[in-house]
Amino acid sequence: MKILSFFERSSRNFRHSSPYSKFLVLLAVSTGGGIGLVAYSDAKSDHPSSDTKKKKVVVLGTGWAGTSFLKDVDCTKYDVQVVSPRNYFMFTPLLPSVTCGSVEARSIVEPVRRIINKKNGDIKFWEAECLKIDPKNKKVHCRSNHSVHVDGKKEFSVEYDYLIVAIGARANTFNTPGVTEHCHFLKEVDDAQRIRRSVMDCFERANLPDLSYEERKNKLNFVIVGGGPTGVEFAAELHDLINEDLVRLYPALHDLVKISVIEAGDHILSMFDKRISSFAEEKFHRDGIDLKTGYMVVNVSDKEITMKEMQNGKVHSLPYGMIVWSTGIATRPIILDLMKEIGQANRRVLATDEWLRVEGCENVFALGDCATIQQRKVMEDITAIFNIADKDNSGTLTADKVKKFLEGICERYPQMEIYMKHKQVSDLVDLLYGPNGKSGTKELSIEDFKAALTEVDSKTKFLPATAQVAAQQGTYLAKCFNKMEEREHDPEGPPRIRATGRHRFHPFRYRHLGQFAPLGGEQAAAELPGDWISIGQSTQWLWYSVYASKQVSWRNRMLVISDWMRRFIFGRDSSRI
Amino acid sequence: MKILSFFERSSRNFRHSSPYSKFLVLLAVSTGGGIGLVAYSDAKSDHPSSDTKKKKVVVLGTGWAGTSFLKDVDCTKYDVQVVSPRNYFMFTPLLPSVTCGSVEARSIVEPVRRIINKKNGDIKFWEAECLKIDPKNKKVHCRSNHSVHVDGKKEFSVEYDYLIVAIGARANTFNTPGVTEHCHFLKEVDDAQRIRRSVMDCFERANLPDLSYEERKNKLNFVIVGGGPTGVEFAAELHDLINEDLVRLYPALHDLVKISVIEAGDHILSMFDKRISSFAEEKFHRDGIDLKTGYMVVNVSDKEITMKEMQNGKVHSLPYGMIVWSTGIATRPIILDLMKEIGQANRRVLATDEWLRVEGCENVFALGDCATIQQRKVMEDITAIFNIADKDNSGTLTADKVKKFLEGICERYPQMEIYMKHKQVSDLVDLLYGPNGKSGTKELSIEDFKAALTEVDSKTKFLPATAQVAAQQGTYLAKCFNKMEEREHDPEGPPRIRATGRHRFHPFRYRHLGQFAPLGGEQAAAELPGDWISIGQSTQWLWYSVYASKQVSWRNRMLVISDWMRRFIFGRDSSRI
Repeated sequence: MKILSFFERSSRNFRHSSPYSKFLVLLAVSTGGGIGLVAYSDAKSDHPSSDTKKKKVVVLGTGWAGTSFLKDVDCTKYDVQVVSPRNYFMFTPLLPSVTCGSVEARSIVEPVRRIINKKNGDIKFWEAECLKIDPKNKKVHCRSNHSVHVDGKKEFSVEYDYLIVAIGARANTFNTPGVTEHCHFLKEVDDAQRIRRSVMDCFERANLPDLSYEERKNKLNFVIVGGGPTGVEFAAELHDLINEDLVRLYPALHDLVKISVIEAGDHILSMFDKRISSFAEEKFHRDGIDLKTGYMVVNVSDKEITMKEMQNGKVHSLPYGMIVWSTGIATRPIILDLMKEIGQANRRVLATDEWLRVEGCENVFALGDCATIQQRKVMEDITAIFNIADKDNSGTLTADKVKKFLEGICERYPQMEIYMKHKQVSDLVDLLYGPNGKSGTKELSIEDFKAALTEVDSKTKFLPATAQVAAQQGTYLAKCFNKMEEREHDPEGPPRIRATGRHRFHPFRYRHLGQFAPLGGEQAAAELPGDWISIGQSTQWLWYSVYASKQVSWRNRMLVISDWMRRFIFGRDSSRI
Repeated sequence: MKILSFFERSSRNFRHSSPYSKFLVLLAVSTGGGIGLVAYSDAKSDHPSSDTKKKKVVVLGTGWAGTSFLKDVDCTKYDVQVVSPRNYFMFTPLLPSVTCGSVEARSIVEPVRRIINKKNGDIKFWEAECLKIDPKNKKVHCRSNHSVHVDGKKEFSVEYDYLIVAIGARANTFNTPGVTEHCHFLKEVDDAQRIRRSVMDCFERANLPDLSYEERKNKLNFVIVGGGPTGVEFAAELHDLINEDLVRLYPALHDLVKISVIEAGDHILSMFDKRISSFAEEKFHRDGIDLKTGYMVVNVSDKEITMKEMQNGKVHSLPYGMIVWSTGIATRPIILDLMKEIGQANRRVLATDEWLRVEGCENVFALGDCATIQQRKVMEDITAIFNIADKDNSGTLTADKVKKFLEGICERYPQMEIYMKHKQVSDLVDLLYGPNGKSGTKELSIEDFKAALTEVDSKTKFLPATAQVAAQQGTYLAKCFNKMEEREHDPEGPPRIRATGRHRFHPFRYRHLGQFAPLGGEQAAAELPGDWISIGQSTQWLWYSVYASKQVSWRNRMLVISDWMRRFIFGRDSSRI
């Protein structure tokens, strides 16, 4: 009893926040008689609170972008308010694991209020959906999204000085008929839980008496549309669930199960290195997962999915038990409305500049999946660039002039650097004047200058819609906000091209830290920085450790690890809850 | 990596069932660097399978009664089929803990197929709802209850030789208007999860901007109707959730929260000993939980709950944020239909005899909350009893004759024993002839006999609708089924009163093992066998250990314990999922 009382007291002290650094060693006593030691540390800084005339920053969304902004923004400088229909942050890369019960939904979510609490509670959170962004009046209109009855005022509006739009995207159906009605998506916790129930449903249905062989088979036909990382990971998880756990509970049904992955392109995981893509395809073939590459889904009815062979236009139909639709993302309606208002109506995705500022309205920032950075093109600014470099207005550029101007140009136009790498030259002078031009006296006219750089913009890179990009953008923006006043007088960015002086901040630059593709059966593939490729079981262990370490809190980390342990020991659960 | 590979291999071996007893020591490696040892053992017997002409036993329901029957029935003797809309067994006593996140829903459920698998898979399970019991044709009509689309045949029927009805009961609303629409019940996993979301909803709603003080207060008014063990435990859990965890996340709202318990009787926990009931009431007063005893709810609207003071008939209204309705159980419609068909239409609850056989139809058994045992009354059989005892038909009974007949009479009529205890006599002779009548020659006429026993039946005990009763009934019935053939020739029960010979089996006798009432704040009360009472923190630890040990599988046990640990360490989660 003494140990337990100590334990309890410790845990209470631990949970009630103190401003000091905490360190707690927990004696974890289990009935099995074993003792486990877990080390825990958490640091917390003490901010003095001052509420005088702080500018209002409103953050929409609690996904990767919104949450990393929140974690890093300095609340003593701004009055931060968060609006989101989800009062938690979700670790999306583990969502496919939730669908099959390798990890519990609750383990990968962290309440926003816990994150806020770590910042001394200076952030307000409203659980509501944003209905409309009104950039003219600097307001957002919101509605509480509670399922239970609400009396009186449901809607309210929040004023802002700065607005951070980080509401993510919706699933893209490409307007295929029947998809919304009959397919599962995989974007939210609810989706994952529904998929999980649905898998169990298919097995229980196929197991009912009085069914023909064909009927049983159709019910156990699992179809995944989209061969991207999410679809592939779900297919792999499902295969594991069935072969490791369900086969023993439904032995008669095992041979009837079929998993199909439908992909319009020629390969699955096409965004990865070819070696990974081929490895995945081979593994799936070995596992008996049916890969239908080069097929486009044209219709989904309540019983069948219809697809067209891309090569010859032949149409095939496939009865199914469950479909998971995972073909990419599309813009949310509220963003489309905003785009109309600010003159971006002809675009498909909301555009921001390289500092994440929404083009066409002031003090509104957009990050994560809901926007793309519209990289300024070199050719658009080519005359201005030439004029700046040509300080004496001689109408021509010498290598010397270019050298002086080098600084900042590659930061402002990152495609320049990629183009130079592509051309295998080391700097701008080499590119413009050739390998021996450095010491020469060759002078470039504006036409020569344009001609040399005409293909640069073809190397403009668009950022992928991943958690990594969103998180980096959130952190970047928070840092900018924290230094806003300072940088007003002491700008750190590259020189302005179409104006004088410098930009306040460096533009956002994405650092790719690698990407995983778990393939099931304790196999994974990974693309690591520096074009490294890693495939196999060790990569799966790398996956475990990276994903455990990337959790936003120690709580999540412990929960996720203990979920993995539970799965190792007891297998996945088959209860339909 | 070596440790991990060992771990993985072990776990696979472990999970793939082998017919032998297993023992596995797991090295639980966590990132914290700690090592935990957990001992695990599981035994499994090897039954030879023989499918020749076995009688069909159909079990309806996978609750306490159905599952304990399944666990103990000998599948080599019967062709067992189970029909239930729930493909899992749920440990109901922990359901109130799920509502507030002290325990996860998944930890307290065990898939039926896992239980079946331990019996070598000789049991068939159909995930379906039973729509109609047809005792004339010995059939049950069922319908698959899947939420996803089902093609073709949804309904099917199952034939039986023996039917075990164990489908439980529904919540009793006493036909109070508005209850079904606006209140939460607490019977299923879904209910608990909905309540959990609803609590978080209330907090998030009360926290929205632009609300008045009154509006916030109303939204944080949590009302529990019914002061039984479930209602009281939920109130206690809710109080703990709010005071231990939510207070830090919503500091501004803490003073607005109010928890009320409405009970029509004079006391809460009235089925417990008075000391427990008073202790609970005092603790709730200290905790600031509003106890409204002596109030009956008469109406529930979308905003207010209306109740009548029992003493003076005054009507009060109370605005609320959430109501949990927990006032007892009522008979399910399908059972009411069956009752009409078998001549029990004028009863409120399905009646069985003391061997759990449904009165009025053959080979149908009912157990758990869906039926009550109709104890045969002594006075109904009084003449038959007298005649049997009076072997020589002299018309009078001597003490000797009664002594010979003693055997069996108390088993057949357990109220006799309670009555004797009440009268403080040690046996039947003392009761009939007085303390000195044993050696006397006093002879009893049938009128004397009747007069002496006329109050016996007032001591008939009805069994409470608890998990304990249901589980014991399931085990009892399984044992009867296992010995069915044997007992045909060698009956073990008491002598038949209105026929010759003996009953095949002993009638069902309930052994009360005690009952817990967790009261929150690490305090619990317990009624233990032998009229012992235990109250306080040590009782809470007893509660932890009893509930951990009572889990149906090692898996559940470990999950529940690790949930408790998680709660101790990290507190409860406030995410709205």
